Amino acid sequence: MSTLKGLEDVVAAQTAISDIDGKLGKLWYAGYSIDDLAANSSFEEVLFLVHHIQLPLQAELEELTEQMVNEREAADFVTGLMPTLAEQTSPMSMLRTSISAASAYDPDGWDQSPEANYRKAIRVVSLMPTFIAYYDRHRRELPIVEPNPKLPHGANFLYMLSGEEPEQRVAEIFDTVFILYADHTMNASTFTARVVASTLADMHSAMTAAIAALKGPLHGGANEQAFRMLEEIGDPSRAEEYVTRLFERKQLVMGFGHRVYRQVDDPRATILRGLAKELGETAGDMRWYEISEAVERVVREQKGLRPNVDFYAASVLHYLGLATDLFTPMFAAARAAGWTAHIREQYADNRIIRPDSEYIGPRDMTWVPVEERQEEAS
Amino acid sequence: MSTLKGLEDVVAAQTAISDIDGKLGKLWYAGYSIDDLAANSSFEEVLFLVHHIQLPLQAELEELTEQMVNEREAADFVTGLMPTLAEQTSPMSMLRTSISAASAYDPDGWDQSPEANYRKAIRVVSLMPTFIAYYDRHRRELPIVEPNPKLPHGANFLYMLSGEEPEQRVAEIFDTVFILYADHTMNASTFTARVVASTLADMHSAMTAAIAALKGPLHGGANEQAFRMLEEIGDPSRAEEYVTRLFERKQLVMGFGHRVYRQVDDPRATILRGLAKELGETAGDMRWYEISEAVERVVREQKGLRPNVDFYAASVLHYLGLATDLFTPMFAAARAAGWTAHIREQYADNRIIRPDSEYIGPRDMTWVPVEERQEEAS
Repeated sequence: MSTLKGLEDVVAAQTAISDIDGKLGKLWYAGYSIDDLAANSSFEEVLFLVHHIQLPLQAELEELTEQMVNEREAADFVTGLMPTLAEQTSPMSMLRTSISAASAYDPDGWDQSPEANYRKAIRVVSLMPTFIAYYDRHRRELPIVEPNPKLPHGANFLYMLSGEEPEQRVAEIFDTVFILYADHTMNASTFTARVVASTLADMHSAMTAAIAALKGPLHGGANEQAFRMLEEIGDPSRAEEYVTRLFERKQLVMGFGHRVYRQVDDPRATILRGLAKELGETAGDMRWYEISEAVERVVREQKGLRPNVDFYAASVLHYLGLATDLFTPMFAAARAAGWTAHIREQYADNRIIRPDSEYIGPRDMTWVPVEERQEEAS
Repeated sequence: MSTLKGLEDVVAAQTAISDIDGKLGKLWYAGYSIDDLAANSSFEEVLFLVHHIQLPLQAELEELTEQMVNEREAADFVTGLMPTLAEQTSPMSMLRTSISAASAYDPDGWDQSPEANYRKAIRVVSLMPTFIAYYDRHRRELPIVEPNPKLPHGANFLYMLSGEEPEQRVAEIFDTVFILYADHTMNASTFTARVVASTLADMHSAMTAAIAALKGPLHGGANEQAFRMLEEIGDPSRAEEYVTRLFERKQLVMGFGHRVYRQVDDPRATILRGLAKELGETAGDMRWYEISEAVERVVREQKGLRPNVDFYAASVLHYLGLATDLFTPMFAAARAAGWTAHIREQYADNRIIRPDSEYIGPRDMTWVPVEERQEEAS
């Protein structure tokens, strides 16, 4: 047994939720290409798809949409935490704490039946934008905007953040970002969710743990850091100098490179590049798009690296009006679709995930009372 | 690449914290046998040992003890949650939510230096008994008992639960239980903590996730279920019939069998058996010990299985006065020593833990608008 640090290339689970071909630069959810889904689908449909491994019929889609609308309102206990959380902690810690706290109010309690867990999944997915928006309104000292039952998931999220109904096309684009982030096979947070689910811990426990994992800067957070870099660069003409200097210092350019898509474009980046351009044109402010394009060109010339989902998501989310530190919470809210689906998939055919460790410490130590211990000779 | 469901026998990390020899029935923390540690050590010493991979000198032990005493008091925000959590949720959900919420008040904030993470580790370990005791006092509608700075970790925990200083020997025995539960190489919660830490998420995120994993009935909870079984049996004379019927129905006897200790006794069970007997004698109430002994005999005769740590922990913790549903939170409070040490060990030599998945779902699906979808022919 050799140690497989990082478990790279170890196949830890089977899944029907999503698939990647890193050589072709292709991503599918339950067999549907991400291009088709981004062009035609809604987040609600994608949520159904990753849970049922088929697209919903009209009646099923209507039922799910209604369910989601009904589950948007948070329990008073959790909203009661928001003023303090908004004052005291980061958005991802808030989200981790809120989802954990929300378990106390789930109407399905400790029911672990597949039906109850599906309802819990829809509930958690529906609640996450509410928590994020309430938190953001509190810290901006603005009145809370209650969810609007007439709006779909993404549009309602923008509405709760800004207090204004988004334009049709803006809502569509935000929905597309949700679709692009909804799942991506195995990754550290999805794996965390499955490990926790494999102990048969409840949906909220597994989701809390997934949020905890996404919080790590090696996993979530690249879209935020990418935007902070665009801000620092400030103008397309400065991109080359900035990137060159980063590489000279052996630093990373955030939002580039992917362990799966290596010689090809991340298909999500391709879609997001187009959306960033469109939003820039509509806003009459091409700056963020143009800086992004310039950075992409320089990074490709100097290192041959290509942008991943996080790079163009940065300018898209900024054009859509999100505060930069809400980019990762938005990622979490979208990936909640995939996390909940993976958790239910794990429950359905479970074996506890419990690898081994290799001991490399001291051996055969002899106990000495504390009075007789001496500093080790150096 | 074949799928390694459960990752059994996959070595996911190197560790110097603990080691097991399943054939000899031996457990060591940093090279010291669990027998030596249980007989001679304090939980404070063991906490130092798993973090520093050596026993503390007198001055180091005094410094750590002082640090722990100073970190026992919870922030008002977290204690403010307790009345509601005590009313609304299970002890493990409470613990998960409280540790997550406590991150907002950690004086080291987002400092990820090794020094800050060591302080956070000590802080979280020190706080867990406070959260559990406050929760328990609230739900029993008793006034909160503030931590007593004169008492060591375990004795103070019992004091905060009951409001009375425990007798010397009782405190010692509780401390021994803490030592026995402090670490056990890789397991689902420790692995979860390391996966989350591998994204470089903070100490509180990794600890929150570990608690989430321990909550699962396939991982924590066996000590609680074992005691509920003893209660159902009620008398040693009924053990044989009860166990026989369980086996006839293909059900498990909780607290028996271990994937590592197979043909030998779990060394922790051996120690706990003696403590259960001692506590029964002292209490003048041998019932729980005698039922346990009878169950052990029958299970061994009929299935050749031996008790694990959770089986005799059940009667020990009951004799010590803990409510049955606090057995798993107590496990968490003790294992916090190991979890925090594993998290710091992961940070110190990190690579993100991110295995692969194998796609087994549908392929090459063609998008159809929702109006045109039809139910699949069955």
